[in-house]
Amino acid sequence: MIQLLALCGSLRRQSLNAMVLRALKRVAPENIQIELYPSLGDLPLFNPDIEDTNLLSIVDLRDAIIQADGVIIASPEYARGVSGVMKNALDWMVGNESFVNKPVMLLNASPRAHHALDALHLTLLTMSAKVIDDAYVAIQIMGTTLNEDDIVNDAIIAGSLRKALETFCNEIGRVNNTPVFPISPMP
Amino acid sequence: MIQLLALCGSLRRQSLNAMVLRALKRVAPENIQIELYPSLGDLPLFNPDIEDTNLLSIVDLRDAIIQADGVIIASPEYARGVSGVMKNALDWMVGNESFVNKPVMLLNASPRAHHALDALHLTLLTMSAKVIDDAYVAIQIMGTTLNEDDIVNDAIIAGSLRKALETFCNEIGRVNNTPVFPISPMP
Repeated sequence: MIQLLALCGSLRRQSLNAMVLRALKRVAPENIQIELYPSLGDLPLFNPDIEDTNLLSIVDLRDAIIQADGVIIASPEYARGVSGVMKNALDWMVGNESFVNKPVMLLNASPRAHHALDALHLTLLTMSAKVIDDAYVAIQIMGTTLNEDDIVNDAIIAGSLRKALETFCNEIGRVNNTPVFPISPMP
Repeated sequence: MIQLLALCGSLRRQSLNAMVLRALKRVAPENIQIELYPSLGDLPLFNPDIEDTNLLSIVDLRDAIIQADGVIIASPEYARGVSGVMKNALDWMVGNESFVNKPVMLLNASPRAHHALDALHLTLLTMSAKVIDDAYVAIQIMGTTLNEDDIVNDAIIAGSLRKALETFCNEIGRVNNTPVFPISPMP
């Protein structure tokens, strides 16, 4: 069983990124468990002066990352930059090194946008995360009327999500020297 | 009299960026008034769902920007990205258009770092701010023991800050078609 943690960089209730992550969870094979992190909105704004305190929200995110075999990030682009919500969460995680050697898969719900993705990628590499580029998946959701069920039921989209997950988990298995695939058959 | 607003992208008490902004205020000619914005840490994390409410902290920042003739930004680089604190503040300001056509001067206290600065620059341009590149000023503070008084009393550093301010305010005057220089003599 592979345990993955999914982080969404938007706090919007109807967030497209959150929707894609929920769909991803539904199309995942049985041996891949995806935990959708409740909200990065519980974190305070990053302040290095209080970095060594044990704020519950910080510890909770840190532990969730450490315990996961890999992290999936879906984050919007705001004004051609990484959302402050996402970057703020990463700023908190720099000091505790929870991302060091952590396999990371990036999911992009608006592939026409790439500035935020590039910046996010650079920050994650700087934090010594293992961004698995082959597992990167882009789905053009923004500008469409696709909902969660549509994504799950669309063979091509669901297939590309599943393929990305497969690539990601194979890479995690390779890193840990414990191959996990062949995965369970598509339900 | 030119009124400038200074925003610091770090919440650290001993922030180098805040220190440079305080020094900048002290070396400014009499006809340039710089307001150091108390703290971007009072803002909540950006959530588009509550963007149309009148949260006091959002309105306060928006009005301070709108009322200023120009905005000075000094922000640290965290993991080769814009600090979440700074980006979060900008995310809130996208919707209210307070930065549209607003002259902006960037100040860099760690010139070896440029990724965050480049990303910040791109975001500000995307928000239709008028970033005055000729007023950009970089001072290598990080890695030195320079304190605020040292900066104020160092003729070269203080001179470069004052020169940047002069360029910035001249540009503001040009934009507003009301030249403000020659500035008051150095005290």
